[in-house]
Amino acid sequence: MAAVKNGDESLIIVMRPDAGPADLDRVLERLRGIGAEAHVSVGSLRTVIGVVGDAGAIQQVPWEAWRGVERAVPVLAPFRSVSRDSQSENTVVDVGGVRIGSGAFTVIAGPCAVESREQLHATAAAVKAAGASILRGDAFKPRTSPYSFQGLGEEGLRLLVEARQRHGLPFVAEVLDPRQVELVAGCADLIRIGSRNMSNFPLLAEVGRQPKPVMLKRGFTATVEEWLAAAEYIYKEGNHQIVLCERGIRTFETQTRNTLDISAVPVVQALSHLPVMVDPSHSGGRRWLVSPLTMAALAVGADGVIIDVHPAPETALVDGPQAMPPGEFADLMERVRAVAAVLGR
Amino acid sequence: MAAVKNGDESLIIVMRPDAGPADLDRVLERLRGIGAEAHVSVGSLRTVIGVVGDAGAIQQVPWEAWRGVERAVPVLAPFRSVSRDSQSENTVVDVGGVRIGSGAFTVIAGPCAVESREQLHATAAAVKAAGASILRGDAFKPRTSPYSFQGLGEEGLRLLVEARQRHGLPFVAEVLDPRQVELVAGCADLIRIGSRNMSNFPLLAEVGRQPKPVMLKRGFTATVEEWLAAAEYIYKEGNHQIVLCERGIRTFETQTRNTLDISAVPVVQALSHLPVMVDPSHSGGRRWLVSPLTMAALAVGADGVIIDVHPAPETALVDGPQAMPPGEFADLMERVRAVAAVLGR
Amino acid sequence: MAAVKNGDESLIIVMRPDAGPADLDRVLERLRGIGAEAHVSVGSLRTVIGVVGDAGAIQQVPWEAWRGVERAVPVLAPFRSVSRDSQSENTVVDVGGVRIGSGAFTVIAGPCAVESREQLHATAAAVKAAGASILRGDAFKPRTSPYSFQGLGEEGLRLLVEARQRHGLPFVAEVLDPRQVELVAGCADLIRIGSRNMSNFPLLAEVGRQPKPVMLKRGFTATVEEWLAAAEYIYKEGNHQIVLCERGIRTFETQTRNTLDISAVPVVQALSHLPVMVDPSHSGGRRWLVSPLTMAALAVGADGVIIDVHPAPETALVDGPQAMPPGEFADLMERVRAVAAVLGR
Amino acid sequence: MAAVKNGDESLIIVMRPDAGPADLDRVLERLRGIGAEAHVSVGSLRTVIGVVGDAGAIQQVPWEAWRGVERAVPVLAPFRSVSRDSQSENTVVDVGGVRIGSGAFTVIAGPCAVESREQLHATAAAVKAAGASILRGDAFKPRTSPYSFQGLGEEGLRLLVEARQRHGLPFVAEVLDPRQVELVAGCADLIRIGSRNMSNFPLLAEVGRQPKPVMLKRGFTATVEEWLAAAEYIYKEGNHQIVLCERGIRTFETQTRNTLDISAVPVVQALSHLPVMVDPSHSGGRRWLVSPLTMAALAVGADGVIIDVHPAPETALVDGPQAMPPGEFADLMERVRAVAAVLGR
Repeated sequence: MAAVKNGDESLIIVMRPDAGPADLDRVLERLRGIGAEAHVSVGSLRTVIGVVGDAGAIQQVPWEAWRGVERAVPVLAPFRSVSRDSQSENTVVDVGGVRIGSGAFTVIAGPCAVESREQLHATAAAVKAAGASILRGDAFKPRTSPYSFQGLGEEGLRLLVEARQRHGLPFVAEVLDPRQVELVAGCADLIRIGSRNMSNFPLLAEVGRQPKPVMLKRGFTATVEEWLAAAEYIYKEGNHQIVLCERGIRTFETQTRNTLDISAVPVVQALSHLPVMVDPSHSGGRRWLVSPLTMAALAVGADGVIIDVHPAPETALVDGPQAMPPGEFADLMERVRAVAAVLGR
Repeated sequence: MAAVKNGDESLIIVMRPDAGPADLDRVLERLRGIGAEAHVSVGSLRTVIGVVGDAGAIQQVPWEAWRGVERAVPVLAPFRSVSRDSQSENTVVDVGGVRIGSGAFTVIAGPCAVESREQLHATAAAVKAAGASILRGDAFKPRTSPYSFQGLGEEGLRLLVEARQRHGLPFVAEVLDPRQVELVAGCADLIRIGSRNMSNFPLLAEVGRQPKPVMLKRGFTATVEEWLAAAEYIYKEGNHQIVLCERGIRTFETQTRNTLDISAVPVVQALSHLPVMVDPSHSGGRRWLVSPLTMAALAVGADGVIIDVHPAPETALVDGPQAMPPGEFADLMERVRAVAAVLGR
Repeated sequence: MAAVKNGDESLIIVMRPDAGPADLDRVLERLRGIGAEAHVSVGSLRTVIGVVGDAGAIQQVPWEAWRGVERAVPVLAPFRSVSRDSQSENTVVDVGGVRIGSGAFTVIAGPCAVESREQLHATAAAVKAAGASILRGDAFKPRTSPYSFQGLGEEGLRLLVEARQRHGLPFVAEVLDPRQVELVAGCADLIRIGSRNMSNFPLLAEVGRQPKPVMLKRGFTATVEEWLAAAEYIYKEGNHQIVLCERGIRTFETQTRNTLDISAVPVVQALSHLPVMVDPSHSGGRRWLVSPLTMAALAVGADGVIIDVHPAPETALVDGPQAMPPGEFADLMERVRAVAAVLGR
Repeated sequence: MAAVKNGDESLIIVMRPDAGPADLDRVLERLRGIGAEAHVSVGSLRTVIGVVGDAGAIQQVPWEAWRGVERAVPVLAPFRSVSRDSQSENTVVDVGGVRIGSGAFTVIAGPCAVESREQLHATAAAVKAAGASILRGDAFKPRTSPYSFQGLGEEGLRLLVEARQRHGLPFVAEVLDPRQVELVAGCADLIRIGSRNMSNFPLLAEVGRQPKPVMLKRGFTATVEEWLAAAEYIYKEGNHQIVLCERGIRTFETQTRNTLDISAVPVVQALSHLPVMVDPSHSGGRRWLVSPLTMAALAVGADGVIIDVHPAPETALVDGPQAMPPGEFADLMERVRAVAAVLGR
């Protein structure tokens, strides 16, 4: 398939019913001025202009500010390089030898936050034994309240490096601040951009300029289109090793922490070539939801899951109510393997 | 202005990037078959078809089910008769001599539910004295729980008729069931369709076939477009005396019962010729929000408000927390008159 | 397990920081007056009252309208009979011999709307052959636009009865209007209340008073709690054969028609003893989403799915873009059987 | 009023119906261990524990992870210093001599983005003449697409400083990145945290450590509680000069860019002592909505508005469709003055 020319754009301009011929002429003249083709359909109530031309030039004009224009509907999405239009084969992301997006169902597991050497090693040993292939554990935590535990910082990263050596598991850790990127990228095998930072553009640019793969969680209030546009920020800076992760969106329902948008998995697979995982822990926010949501993620076709596991959820410093104890996690992994086998994964 | 021809429709069809020439030809052939004009714009990534023709024929085809079609975007809204396209001057609705939509700011007030003769008369006397021009009071209440008070029924209507005679105020009452329409329409001056019934199409058709004016509250989960399409159901049956009423939509915010969509007032005024009021009591759900939201409704340009007033909110059988006592209501009416005067209303 | 006493209620009342001793005393006196126990916890910023007593008496008081009360938080949900508190074992619903909720994964399939004898028979034969056990097909359709096809009415029901006889499949059909309940209940094996009518209380009461089982779809803007309270309306009238059906909720995401709330399945199973199915067709609104969402519904533990199948989606009069052609449906059923076998269903 | 002791917390713990006496005992023992008081209310279906004690100790325990606990409901909000509980009188924020929150209605106006010296000076002169008291204009812009105009950067700040000198208007500018804070704070009179960065905690901490006042826009998907908790992050670092700004939230409605949550103004005024303004330009996203929404903001009691004004909206590089031309802005200011006078502001 030919590479996408970012210069191509299509736009539909709908004129207001009270727009006069002069309004239409001004728009058409401006389109000619920027070298765009215009195809006019005149209905009895609305006139519609189909526009084809150079993206940069077309997008720079705020068409809806023009007299007589009712709305301007872009035909192409605001993400190009990460779209299926530009690459039809799936991207495979290599995380310390684990290939996400290659067809297998990748399980990442570990504590939400690193709390101590003992907690981390106990969890790492347990998730490794149960079959997880990547360890999770954060050293920096974004918390709604400034009075909550904010993570162990550098000490947490050191413990993660130690755990990788001892248990042979690559690890993923979150980065919150552009000034931390160098530090975290120097240690972690996969850098995570959390939900609250999905639209933190300076941070996206920074992780796009370093070589470690990036997991981009969906903002809990972001549309799929905005999520892919955020991935485009990273891609554009040169880093093409991006894993998407659906983790629930904000809705009116309060029985769950967020509403897992399970349909986003096939939708993203249709729109983009990037792999997409699911976080059943943060979406549901309840320990007993992790198993059914993990099975749903597997069946819907996700590339994997990232699960909070804690040896003693009752003492967890962050997100205890959603943490799974190691025994339950091992049971879940058995069911995952059985269904994955039937699905040929 | 010429009447709208309901037969005119415009549609934009966007083809998928992998659509072949045969896919495009099939679509164009079908369009020719139904007598529609097609204007094709070929971009490097997407082909777009601008369609103009007969609405009935165009809408009957499920274009997004066709091979090669990515999406079909209608240009015209699914409401015609209630739109500004079809009537540019404002509709004025006459409720027992009170003209809603004529420029004045109409205040409807009274108890959420009729509970007793004493409660109703005390409230009616108070709101009349404070300057309200229409009385509210319901005999049938839709309640989330089947164990809650469901209204006094016919006895409530009799008390409302009595209150109208004694206090000289026309009244509005809710109807829940198509089988009650004749009864309620026989008594009330204005029939209200509540938020939960905005998409109860048999009920809409029934109130569309009787002569009393109708207040159509916005469904708390309905878009403005769906709300106007619901008004179209009533209008289409022959009843053109329709007042719209914004009463808050469901969002993730829980500090208020619903989120008052104050912008919906100017949006509806741009799209439709029907008058639009605001319900500051049900949207906020709190007594202390009624005053500021009423002032906002006046300033944004609404045609009026409908307010819950109760002589003793602590004993109210329905929605006590949002009911205003008569003294506060009288204070509010003074502020309303002062600002209305400056605004020339 | 002992039957729930509907008379028991628990409530938490939080007083405002500026509430005085007199405010607290008035609340406590009222609680004593209705025979409720009150347990007071005095903090430095807020005083909290734990209340236990008779539900009817406690709920009748609008506590948040009382001076000094900040909020009143009910401890028990507004659904009782349909809750796990009142019945711990699962309800099984019998639809013409098909037992929904018994552990098997029930597949209901057929056209969204009955369009003609040929369309219905072709579809019924195909879904039967592929393994569906109940036929769907509607004679009455609620449509956003009054100008859209509204269903074949009684003629549609006659065709469904004929299809049942010829193909040996019980069928489900929607009812929109309390006046149609007798007619539809006289023909269908399972009566469906659609999403837009979930809070149509007169309709819920009517289907609660007849003997056929009822499928209650979740309102696309209803919380799980409201959905179960709607089921309570039916249950309370005497009809206990209720199947719940999740079909997507309204969110800000526009890539799908609605956002399938897959987590609602385990949440409902935790809160209620009623079976719960999933509608992958109406939630996604796209043919290519039906397969992955059906697999997710199976894996998450739903009691079944209801799928739109149409022999020629390009000509469907209702919801063509989400209709699956029979060949794809048969493929999906094979995958469903393979995974169901592994899951022991 | 006495200062709030941050150490006080109240919590309500609801036990599950199947919780045993041992579960209750474990919870009570833990509460005793951290020195908290516990008040137990035993209902027939649920046992409820009212807890009072030290906040740090109580919050550290993930109660919902404990066996037998159904939910834990905090009584106090996660913001303390910015709440009315801690300061009853209003905070007044001084921006280059303009006192926001003092009772007057403050109007901030100017271009969304600084594009050129000419554009900025023309706008500044016009808004000053019309009566605005603070200039807006951004040098750094967060854009959904990486291919959109991202602002003039430092050159933009220099132009703003020049405009301040020439027109005598203090100015507000957005900061996106913790590394830019020193630069922007060195120039601007008021630093703005945009909607997308409301939960960018490192950025909040950074602006909390410098002396210039901060405008904190509400995240378009943040609850009021989260917004105030974000203000707490700034406050906690020592900067108490914070202005809140409501700018619309994300809902299902698409007629407006966001849904202006006008009720948030009185809600915030009840919960917090900080001033709160409204952005009618970004919430509506349409030029013709700016006037009615500004009038609504004034009437509802907001401390002011921030309005996009552009001398030639058809050429604006950012958000042209919502920019008001100077003539319309001057007309609006006249109506604002007339109503403000009646309201005594």
